[in-house]
Amino acid sequence: MELIDGNRIAAEIVSDLRAEVAALPGRPPCLALVRVGDDPASVSYVKNKEKTAAAIGIAGRILLPPATISSDELFALIDQLNGDPAVDGILVQSPLPPHLDELAVFRRIAPAKDVDGLGTVNLGKLAQDDDTGFVSCTPAGIMELLARSGVRLAGRHVVVIGRSLLVGKPVALLALQKRAGANATVTVCHSQTRGLPALARQADVLIAAIGRAEFVTADMVKPGAVVIDVGINRVADPTRKAGYRLVGDVHFPSVAPLAGKITPVPGGVGPMTVAMLMKNTLKAYRQQHGA
Amino acid sequence: MELIDGNRIAAEIVSDLRAEVAALPGRPPCLALVRVGDDPASVSYVKNKEKTAAAIGIAGRILLPPATISSDELFALIDQLNGDPAVDGILVQSPLPPHLDELAVFRRIAPAKDVDGLGTVNLGKLAQDDDTGFVSCTPAGIMELLARSGVRLAGRHVVVIGRSLLVGKPVALLALQKRAGANATVTVCHSQTRGLPALARQADVLIAAIGRAEFVTADMVKPGAVVIDVGINRVADPTRKAGYRLVGDVHFPSVAPLAGKITPVPGGVGPMTVAMLMKNTLKAYRQQHGA
Repeated sequence: MELIDGNRIAAEIVSDLRAEVAALPGRPPCLALVRVGDDPASVSYVKNKEKTAAAIGIAGRILLPPATISSDELFALIDQLNGDPAVDGILVQSPLPPHLDELAVFRRIAPAKDVDGLGTVNLGKLAQDDDTGFVSCTPAGIMELLARSGVRLAGRHVVVIGRSLLVGKPVALLALQKRAGANATVTVCHSQTRGLPALARQADVLIAAIGRAEFVTADMVKPGAVVIDVGINRVADPTRKAGYRLVGDVHFPSVAPLAGKITPVPGGVGPMTVAMLMKNTLKAYRQQHGA
Repeated sequence: MELIDGNRIAAEIVSDLRAEVAALPGRPPCLALVRVGDDPASVSYVKNKEKTAAAIGIAGRILLPPATISSDELFALIDQLNGDPAVDGILVQSPLPPHLDELAVFRRIAPAKDVDGLGTVNLGKLAQDDDTGFVSCTPAGIMELLARSGVRLAGRHVVVIGRSLLVGKPVALLALQKRAGANATVTVCHSQTRGLPALARQADVLIAAIGRAEFVTADMVKPGAVVIDVGINRVADPTRKAGYRLVGDVHFPSVAPLAGKITPVPGGVGPMTVAMLMKNTLKAYRQQHGA
């Protein structure tokens, strides 16, 4: 078994991006990070993104509207960022408070600044194999992890567990694309799938993105398979100071010995998501500045 | 084995649409059909669509630019239709002559009039499970055929052979949606898939859309499976007056005895595509008129 080190690979990307940004002629790229309220996980995600942006030389503009912000007020804020020529990319951190329609918020972001790739136009471009669009950061990070770990997808069977808009569907579309690094056969399973263990066991590459702690067990993994764990779940753990520990969607202790390669949680997909957000921000900057 | 009669099911839809259109208060819906040049298959498709529109009471506006039309001229024509309040839906018949960029042409159609559902916004809405968009007609027709034939997809395994923008990808996204009539587990195979026969043999519902005459043979079909044949291929046949006959992507003689249900070619998916185009046109009319 080989551990896929997301921290190391993300650090490589960050380092490449730092060099690219340093070489830009004009002002640095600018990423607006909008965090509504103060959900503890969101606080830590946004802090992380801010830190990584700073390390690269991307200017972070942090906006922290209260959890009580109305839909119209949040739209107005996004419209202002859409129209601001000093802002290249916009990310609204999810999850949003329940009174806000997350999809409507994602859609409000101008496609040219939608560096999280969850708006309608960028999803459509993904389905059209058009790489001028922005691919949402977690799926893009997964593809990059696989490529940089020497995993060839062409003709091989990728099984995705989970069909979310954020991960399952876009990573399936990516792996299926007709281009170098993709060309996989793709199966998408989910909570309603019958016979999921047997299907998962067919995977050459198994991507777990179902949002259930340690859902994938050894009986669902073919020996030698590549296992990508997208889950970040908190499970109660009284032995920890925080009272919880983070686990993935994969039961790591039983699956790791079987797998050919596997990502840990934390330190697998997570850091890649942040790195790809920065890569998308630089792309947005270049597209808007013709640089 | 039960034959899924696309002609009969399409005729039911056409009859329902005729009643709906007759009950509309104002002018009838209007569908612009653009055929570039005179590719023989396109001539017959457009004629068919024109006839079906007329039977329903949808006004057809037929535009027949020459095969030599430039990209800019075709864009100008589409822009004019986009801006014309008397036109509700626009279809540009594919295939287009090779000097025209098909995707760019599809994208030029205003999303609200894109009744063929191949533009970026409508594909994005499909990925977002948003049913205000237009789903391209062949995939929508396949879903309707399955629903009206009593095939329940929830939890069952749909295997799609082919990953085209027109059929394979949208039908996979549709079958995967989280809504009644969908919720399938979905696998997409294609020309680069390894071990395709064994994968196809797992299908409860097998959708053949690879564009190769009689590609699916008996060894690729589980006994009792539902088989949907999207292919329309001409194969030389000197015993026919026309010199050819139409066959699907399925080798019907050997597969039909095995299948639980199967669509014939012609008379299966084909007529459904036309019926769904009309349904989308009425939807476009209603959305634009608030009727």
